[in-house]
Amino acid sequence: MTKRLLFIALTISIATGLFAQEAKFDRSVKFKENFEAAIPHPEQDRIVSQKLAELEERTGKKPNILLLVADDVGYGDFGAYGGGAQIGAATPNIDQIATEGLKLTAAYSQHTCTPTRATILTGRLPVRSGLTRPILAGDNITKNPWEGELSSAELLSEAGYHTMLVGKWHLGEPTGMRPHDVGFDEFYGYYPAQKEISQGYDPRRYPDLIYNEDRYAAFEGIKPDDHLIHGFKGGETNKLDQVTSTEDMGRADQVLVDFTISKIKELAKGDKPFFIDHCFMKAHADNFDNPDYPGLSASKYPYKNSIAEIDKHVGDIYKALEEAGILENTLILITSDNGPQMDSWPDSGYTPFRGAKGTTWEGGVRIPAIFYWKGMIAPRESAELFDLTDVFGLTLRLAGVDQNSLPSDKYYDYVDQTSFILHDEGESNRETVYFWWGTELMACRMKEYKIHVKVIQEQSTHMYIDKSLIQDVGLAPWLFNLYIDPKEEIPVGHRRNAWLATMGAKLKQHAATFRKYPPKDVGLGN
Amino acid sequence: MTKRLLFIALTISIATGLFAQEAKFDRSVKFKENFEAAIPHPEQDRIVSQKLAELEERTGKKPNILLLVADDVGYGDFGAYGGGAQIGAATPNIDQIATEGLKLTAAYSQHTCTPTRATILTGRLPVRSGLTRPILAGDNITKNPWEGELSSAELLSEAGYHTMLVGKWHLGEPTGMRPHDVGFDEFYGYYPAQKEISQGYDPRRYPDLIYNEDRYAAFEGIKPDDHLIHGFKGGETNKLDQVTSTEDMGRADQVLVDFTISKIKELAKGDKPFFIDHCFMKAHADNFDNPDYPGLSASKYPYKNSIAEIDKHVGDIYKALEEAGILENTLILITSDNGPQMDSWPDSGYTPFRGAKGTTWEGGVRIPAIFYWKGMIAPRESAELFDLTDVFGLTLRLAGVDQNSLPSDKYYDYVDQTSFILHDEGESNRETVYFWWGTELMACRMKEYKIHVKVIQEQSTHMYIDKSLIQDVGLAPWLFNLYIDPKEEIPVGHRRNAWLATMGAKLKQHAATFRKYPPKDVGLGN
Repeated sequence: MTKRLLFIALTISIATGLFAQEAKFDRSVKFKENFEAAIPHPEQDRIVSQKLAELEERTGKKPNILLLVADDVGYGDFGAYGGGAQIGAATPNIDQIATEGLKLTAAYSQHTCTPTRATILTGRLPVRSGLTRPILAGDNITKNPWEGELSSAELLSEAGYHTMLVGKWHLGEPTGMRPHDVGFDEFYGYYPAQKEISQGYDPRRYPDLIYNEDRYAAFEGIKPDDHLIHGFKGGETNKLDQVTSTEDMGRADQVLVDFTISKIKELAKGDKPFFIDHCFMKAHADNFDNPDYPGLSASKYPYKNSIAEIDKHVGDIYKALEEAGILENTLILITSDNGPQMDSWPDSGYTPFRGAKGTTWEGGVRIPAIFYWKGMIAPRESAELFDLTDVFGLTLRLAGVDQNSLPSDKYYDYVDQTSFILHDEGESNRETVYFWWGTELMACRMKEYKIHVKVIQEQSTHMYIDKSLIQDVGLAPWLFNLYIDPKEEIPVGHRRNAWLATMGAKLKQHAATFRKYPPKDVGLGN
Repeated sequence: MTKRLLFIALTISIATGLFAQEAKFDRSVKFKENFEAAIPHPEQDRIVSQKLAELEERTGKKPNILLLVADDVGYGDFGAYGGGAQIGAATPNIDQIATEGLKLTAAYSQHTCTPTRATILTGRLPVRSGLTRPILAGDNITKNPWEGELSSAELLSEAGYHTMLVGKWHLGEPTGMRPHDVGFDEFYGYYPAQKEISQGYDPRRYPDLIYNEDRYAAFEGIKPDDHLIHGFKGGETNKLDQVTSTEDMGRADQVLVDFTISKIKELAKGDKPFFIDHCFMKAHADNFDNPDYPGLSASKYPYKNSIAEIDKHVGDIYKALEEAGILENTLILITSDNGPQMDSWPDSGYTPFRGAKGTTWEGGVRIPAIFYWKGMIAPRESAELFDLTDVFGLTLRLAGVDQNSLPSDKYYDYVDQTSFILHDEGESNRETVYFWWGTELMACRMKEYKIHVKVIQEQSTHMYIDKSLIQDVGLAPWLFNLYIDPKEEIPVGHRRNAWLATMGAKLKQHAATFRKYPPKDVGLGN
């Protein structure tokens, strides 16, 4: 651990060695040593606090929170973000919600699935929680990363919420790491991603596995659980239906959505507010049509049909909230866990940007993020910074959990963005987004500028995970102006020395947090 | 000419030599030998004809037509197409109009300026009119390309419209080629593009020209006219203010918009309907802020400020139509003449696609196209095919010009898309878009498929005009599925033989039209 800490510090000092130490353009303020600095907006904050108090007075309840997290869906896949019908999979429901809600165009995830899901629930970067990369079949995790972590699910459960994870988990299958072990009152879903399950049932894609008895037996020894799980905090963990075919896999999301909708109906009648983290299995490779409605999109390709299916589900969930009469008291977030996984092309999504899942280029980390809350969020679009880590703070704030009571021996990377999201003309409270690739600090963004100290270079079209290299930049960090160069093609570093200095200083400050708050190593690595 | 004709035919037979002759998937029908085949939609057409007749009965007039053509603006520049605030130049007015109108996501231009502008006015491909590439300073045009051409401006003028071109022309400066020589009743604008003028006044960009007296003198001998021109059909051509500085250049669009707005007010009171082709000077390189409102965009870069300025102008023009009470009787089209010119980066726009202006990749030819007509066009989005050539037919149809009376010795490439645009759920009447690069037939699109028989390959980032190569494809045309591969990265040719056959046959049919209707050569070449 000490070695890694030193390494991180060293990387930063080399990469920014040429530049000054002062973060001159930095507007953020550190209000607590172990919290990420934030841009103060006292007036905006005051108005939003009042708005929330008024709502609570009217409803007599804390608001519900519903996260709708799609898997591996690219920034450009939904119509609201330039895709939709144009690329063969119309998304009318999501587009409509985007039009009536807050559409963020500079929202960021981590580079892969597990890391992003961890940040949403912990408010801490993966390198701090140890959940640095997707947990895969056969992984030997030497230590439970959840030990010592405090999830929003747990905090909200304690604050009187019914907390529930429906769908894909992918944050650990062993006891102690399951959703209902780490704070969720209820779990209904699958531990792994689609492909991890379906490879065992898909002879067209994996004949070398399926048609070789010895290999299949070996795979069965290490494969993740392919049952639908229904688990309860401190109670039973029931194995429901097993996925035994690609048809079963194709039906999974309908099963999950049916469950969420039935729970919404039930919970709407109760006294407790709910926090539902609904994580779609789709559109992670490998995609299979739901056999009950095959070929749902104009394109007809499985990935595209999954996008159309997700849109259908979002529409149905929205309708359920409406019919239950709780739209006015429910915050909805529609997002994705990372950029499109292009390695599986054509079973993959679309980003207009450079790179894809597995990289810290914009294509890997810029994701759609639509907030909707009837009567509480004005229809608008914002190009200001948001990081999915911030969802942690937002859930705490809405639930009335005192953020000052969070442990002081842990570093928190989230920024409380409640006022940004809920004010009619809200400005972001986040000054900087840091981009990690496992245990490697890669890049950071401030305003429209982004610098890279390391990059993932593809060696073949779309091969960002299976065939790519991690490389150090040369003399100076690569500085891109994302307004004039959204595809990160031509660095303008030597022309923007003052910005480089500020961002270099911010990177150093960031790296310095690991001295007092060391990263956690559970053996996942990069 | 015979040589070129042979060459075209040859190119096609080589490129599609491997494939069958039948266009099996072709839904279009040839209704006249010299007209492009169209997909019949009799019911859609009937409804729209009735809608138009009812409007005319109410207003007692044919409808006004207003084209708002931006210069070198990329597919992604406006917010409605995924850009806007996200890339540092918000376009709220255009986005609002897009939301309330018809947003096309598969509309095509030619690869450069002059060719596109020619197609809009003639309904014929550049290779037929001879206007195959931008007319530049020092060009030796051996023959007037307008000779024998029949412009929509002329046809509409004869049909009782006041026809007017405001802004950039770029379709010939000599007598006989000016807007008021080829059908426009009135011209108020500039003959060339911004850079052609401003290079004579911009010592920061062109010191080697400006600070060398001999070179400057030589340039003055061949430079295009840099006066604001006010010309009248059959009447005077007045030279108004000369541009003598980059500040003058920066103010040009405001001058033009002021004129259009004053004319809208005036014409709204008269009996004649109008056809105004308002062509912005911006955002063609080189861009200069209007000194009266510098730094209009968040990005502050000149190109971005031009985008914000265009949006401001569109808002003002919209307001003028509204105040004049003629929104219900005016069709508006907001579009661009080609993809972004990336060679001038960062003085350039944004496309999410491959390539840029000067290529027949999607980046060069896919353009924003928003139709707006209060009460006549339902708010919607369509991913079906449209070519700016089709604007010709649309203007004729709206003006009541009988398309059957068009000369039978000329080939017409437009398709009458009136019913596609005006029906609430209109389907495109165009089956195929053909892509030319000057006199080279490069590619065609049907549905989501696009095949290339020649491609423009950049040799350096963004160098699509100044440093690129035109190359023949290898064994088979490059076939892309634009739904699963909007960036044209991985051809799927060998997997879609049946489509290749159809599209190959379409290309041959297209090439065959040049046997009976030979291309026109005015010496421009590629």
